[in-house]
Amino acid sequence: MSEEDALGRLTTRTLAMPSDTNAAGDIFGGWVLSQMDIAAGICAGQRAQGRVVTVAVESMSFIRAVKVGDILGLYTHIAELGRTSMVVHVEAWVRRDRIGLREKVTEGRFKFVALDENGASTPVPAEEDLPDYARDN
Amino acid sequence: MSEEDALGRLTTRTLAMPSDTNAAGDIFGGWVLSQMDIAAGICAGQRAQGRVVTVAVESMSFIRAVKVGDILGLYTHIAELGRTSMVVHVEAWVRRDRIGLREKVTEGRFKFVALDENGASTPVPAEEDLPDYARDN
Amino acid sequence: MSEEDALGRLTTRTLAMPSDTNAAGDIFGGWVLSQMDIAAGICAGQRAQGRVVTVAVESMSFIRAVKVGDILGLYTHIAELGRTSMVVHVEAWVRRDRIGLREKVTEGRFKFVALDENGASTPVPAEEDLPDYARDN
Amino acid sequence: MSEEDALGRLTTRTLAMPSDTNAAGDIFGGWVLSQMDIAAGICAGQRAQGRVVTVAVESMSFIRAVKVGDILGLYTHIAELGRTSMVVHVEAWVRRDRIGLREKVTEGRFKFVALDENGASTPVPAEEDLPDYARDN
Amino acid sequence: MSEEDALGRLTTRTLAMPSDTNAAGDIFGGWVLSQMDIAAGICAGQRAQGRVVTVAVESMSFIRAVKVGDILGLYTHIAELGRTSMVVHVEAWVRRDRIGLREKVTEGRFKFVALDENGASTPVPAEEDLPDYARDN
Amino acid sequence: MSEEDALGRLTTRTLAMPSDTNAAGDIFGGWVLSQMDIAAGICAGQRAQGRVVTVAVESMSFIRAVKVGDILGLYTHIAELGRTSMVVHVEAWVRRDRIGLREKVTEGRFKFVALDENGASTPVPAEEDLPDYARDN
Repeated sequence: MSEEDALGRLTTRTLAMPSDTNAAGDIFGGWVLSQMDIAAGICAGQRAQGRVVTVAVESMSFIRAVKVGDILGLYTHIAELGRTSMVVHVEAWVRRDRIGLREKVTEGRFKFVALDENGASTPVPAEEDLPDYARDN
Repeated sequence: MSEEDALGRLTTRTLAMPSDTNAAGDIFGGWVLSQMDIAAGICAGQRAQGRVVTVAVESMSFIRAVKVGDILGLYTHIAELGRTSMVVHVEAWVRRDRIGLREKVTEGRFKFVALDENGASTPVPAEEDLPDYARDN
Repeated sequence: MSEEDALGRLTTRTLAMPSDTNAAGDIFGGWVLSQMDIAAGICAGQRAQGRVVTVAVESMSFIRAVKVGDILGLYTHIAELGRTSMVVHVEAWVRRDRIGLREKVTEGRFKFVALDENGASTPVPAEEDLPDYARDN
Repeated sequence: MSEEDALGRLTTRTLAMPSDTNAAGDIFGGWVLSQMDIAAGICAGQRAQGRVVTVAVESMSFIRAVKVGDILGLYTHIAELGRTSMVVHVEAWVRRDRIGLREKVTEGRFKFVALDENGASTPVPAEEDLPDYARDN
Repeated sequence: MSEEDALGRLTTRTLAMPSDTNAAGDIFGGWVLSQMDIAAGICAGQRAQGRVVTVAVESMSFIRAVKVGDILGLYTHIAELGRTSMVVHVEAWVRRDRIGLREKVTEGRFKFVALDENGASTPVPAEEDLPDYARDN
Repeated sequence: MSEEDALGRLTTRTLAMPSDTNAAGDIFGGWVLSQMDIAAGICAGQRAQGRVVTVAVESMSFIRAVKVGDILGLYTHIAELGRTSMVVHVEAWVRRDRIGLREKVTEGRFKFVALDENGASTPVPAEEDLPDYARDN
């Protein structure tokens, strides 16, 4: 699956199933939001190398509906970095019916805070201290 | 359950179950987002008296974690009204462990567009044309 | 949503989704029973101000089918009060397809026993000792 | 698994999983009710040789909690037979933690009506007209 | 339900629901695999009288699709017995639409190892030491 | 996430959640099998550029348990190609607790047959006729 147009790194990819539909027969928007939250949380957690918590969704656009049978790929990157906080940009792309057209369906920005073992906010490590797999290169 | 502090009308209320948890043992943020999307969609659909589609999340704050056993109540009202669009304000409040403290856990704004039978955007009806149960009084 | 005809207080309200259907395409009866058990348990737990356990369903009538897209509202009140036990009357009403007709779909009576921290039955507190939100007024 | 004490024929048997728990860590009562409704519906549908609808739960006793890892076996038989209706007796038994003690956990009576293709009530066939697998012998 | 043709003992039996479908409208193959894994694990766990872990699927044939409304019965027996390992033969049979034709849909062989309390492999007990319900007679 | 050691192309990647656990607290083996079936089906469907059906699992090894919080990545490639059939090799790798060690947890081979619109087996297209994203390069 070509990733040339998607901004960020592929973080999760999954198949949209009939159990995820709404009353109109499309994929339920809340399921898509859940997948975006999971992917953004993985991106933030790997950047922080520890536990993180979602504090805000700064923006989110629903561009097109997701359909049963679509493959949903979530792409993420760190868009802004604070001392203890990170803003993750997330894009969701589908491959229609597993083999059809590739289209962007949603994009958004999630804000996370890094937490230490006691649940207090903690500084995000410097990028040079990250393991290879977590570097945004 | 006192509703004096919540902004809007109670739209959905449900019990947070162990199957909705994340790896940290709290309720998974994506599940909360799903419940907010459902409640906002009910509010917008009743205002439009027809099918609606989520086009954006304008903002969303996660204030406190939801725990297993909490009752999650979602309150909604129409915050802005365009010709074919509506912005719904959503607040989520919990009653901790069914009988404990009552606290606000998230709030956000979802934007919807009203759709006609062919899926094209369509004007939202005037408030005086709404049935009683759907009036924002 | 007008509550004039329903007996009891609104306890849970949720949207019936395609993942809750049976082979006939209606909402699966077991899902409706689950929602009634949750709502009755919240009512009993708030009256007992503690843990409760379902000991019996005394009666339950299925009046009409629930359909995908219906909003299901559960109304509960304490119908009988023993020293350690409570009978909760539960009514389930739908708003068809979120904006249509409002109809009663099921009603029933669930019996609960209040439990102390060791799982033994324990007296239900007097009504004047309840917090405001839990009074049946 | 010895079936000597259970009344009726084994109709469904399944493993209780962590996703079926309530906030107390036991298996959620609504899940057990769902399993009883499914088993009773299979029994009634096979007796009617067609579609059936649950019209009532006449009684239901919760005797013991179901735990994660228990095998839940549902036993059913036709307890009463009307012209178009059937009362199904259901018993639920567990094998604790797959290999431990065998205990009855719930029992109840569900009433069904047989439906024709248009959804109207229709007579239940005579027992001698049933296929072998559906006879209550 | 006649069991004359199925090899092994009925271990689980459940109803295939709409939430278990794939994009083509049939029951999702992964759900069937899950049911086979559960049934084989029960068989192996009862033979070992303790915890077991799946180490391999030696073979698995998908013969026919499972449809919504089918009753899925899983039959298992111990096909091979090592010192600490067991190969379980599993057959899945459906009763179509609860009352129709009975057909074999899948069969396979799962290999398990018995584990002691520390998670190390441990000998399977002799058959004469098994409780009655677990004997392969 | 480094993919240097995994055989094949990343096809799905998802987070293992508490709702996917078994009674022992590990991720339920049937859920892992489901994810492997989904990933293998995507690989085969893209190679066939159409509908496919799983006909067999030729082999499958469970090497290590999957834990809650692990990221599960599924890697697939076409291992054997017949006229109408394909054997897909699948490997599942985890990143422990999102940021920890990377380990192979399962691998297996699934056999599929390509289907035409009537559900009959149909030839797999030549590789040069595939769109770019589906080539095994």
